Amino acid sequence: MQDPLSELMDRQQIADLVTGYCLALDAMDLETLTALFTQDCLVDYGPGPGMRSVGASRLQQDLARMWRWSRTSHHSSNVHIVFTSEDFADVTSSVYAWHERPDGSTATMMGQYRDQMRRTVDGWRIASRTQVLTGNDAGFDVAINPFDRRPDPQGKGLA
Amino acid sequence: MQDPLSELMDRQQIADLVTGYCLALDAMDLETLTALFTQDCLVDYGPGPGMRSVGASRLQQDLARMWRWSRTSHHSSNVHIVFTSEDFADVTSSVYAWHERPDGSTATMMGQYRDQMRRTVDGWRIASRTQVLTGNDAGFDVAINPFDRRPDPQGKGLA
Amino acid sequence: MQDPLSELMDRQQIADLVTGYCLALDAMDLETLTALFTQDCLVDYGPGPGMRSVGASRLQQDLARMWRWSRTSHHSSNVHIVFTSEDFADVTSSVYAWHERPDGSTATMMGQYRDQMRRTVDGWRIASRTQVLTGNDAGFDVAINPFDRRPDPQGKGLA
Repeated sequence: MQDPLSELMDRQQIADLVTGYCLALDAMDLETLTALFTQDCLVDYGPGPGMRSVGASRLQQDLARMWRWSRTSHHSSNVHIVFTSEDFADVTSSVYAWHERPDGSTATMMGQYRDQMRRTVDGWRIASRTQVLTGNDAGFDVAINPFDRRPDPQGKGLA
Repeated sequence: MQDPLSELMDRQQIADLVTGYCLALDAMDLETLTALFTQDCLVDYGPGPGMRSVGASRLQQDLARMWRWSRTSHHSSNVHIVFTSEDFADVTSSVYAWHERPDGSTATMMGQYRDQMRRTVDGWRIASRTQVLTGNDAGFDVAINPFDRRPDPQGKGLA
Repeated sequence: MQDPLSELMDRQQIADLVTGYCLALDAMDLETLTALFTQDCLVDYGPGPGMRSVGASRLQQDLARMWRWSRTSHHSSNVHIVFTSEDFADVTSSVYAWHERPDGSTATMMGQYRDQMRRTVDGWRIASRTQVLTGNDAGFDVAINPFDRRPDPQGKGLA
């Protein structure tokens, strides 16, 4: 169990991982992005080819696919941190992600990152990240892991 | 007056209420959502039927209406906390809320939550929440409380 | 070098500047907005006329242009704070900004604020702010400073 001040410092460092990911991804600064993850990280965006990366160096290679977009804008929110031990935390956050193709067409997705953060000798890092899909527009056609929204117990509204 | 460390801990717990609401609403985990509120909470989304709820148990019943959407994605931001005493805080935050109907049509609204948070024996809770509307697309037709944007003193731009 | 508790308090105050700006701008409460800046602030939104303001009083005058929109909704995210000394911090944040004209047409932009925050005798203030553009829809035609996204070293995806 952490003392309150140390926990707040941990929370700030963990929140910076979520934030720094979005900023580095939009800038396509993949060196900075990859440094937010553990060397042995597991990243699972969805079922498609190249969407699951094992290890930070492979993640860096795989994310080169994002250059197929001419611009992206990722906006993180709803960062919710639950410590499972002194050195591990489960973190959920939401993301709004806008993408533009070289032809000017766009694709927007909304989702959540479910992360496990781990304290390392160099500070907190993202040890695993799974992305799930909460929403998307018609232009977004990349397969993302499904979101586990609860079904209506009354069966209403699902006609 | 709180000591600085206690105030920071309070701020973190209060921010988690704003965050947890959005995550629980998108998941339609209404038990978790309702537990963020005081038992005697007042929640006012707008003038329509069922849009004002008195008490957490009624709120839980009323929010079942959200199952008429097949998916939602709520993104909170701009969380601004002002303590009015040691045990009360006025909190303003912004929300971007995307909704999809079973037929695939969508509705997006943007707004603010004006909350009063109260410290209880179980921790901070949302004692009252009023939602106001800062923007919406053509697909969103739910009546939300109006936003009090200041009018142009020069009368420009309001033609 | 700050002690950890003081640094966390500084971070909270700095984050409130980013947050407060968005809330005050949507409300067109320009007095509150301007009070977030130093008297000698430099604000650079882009190359167009009136888009660069020197000093808080001039900023207040220039931002009266926002009344040409009937509604706006600004959502800040990704607040990333790096202290460069005890009294200065470089802060990057993302913003999603929706605007509506009196005729009902809309314009959305996404961007980043690159700020320098300065500790003053009255607390932290925004000493300089530069806005860069990470994305926009077809309705948004205001010239904003360009974003420095890294080009693909393989030259892919830029056809």
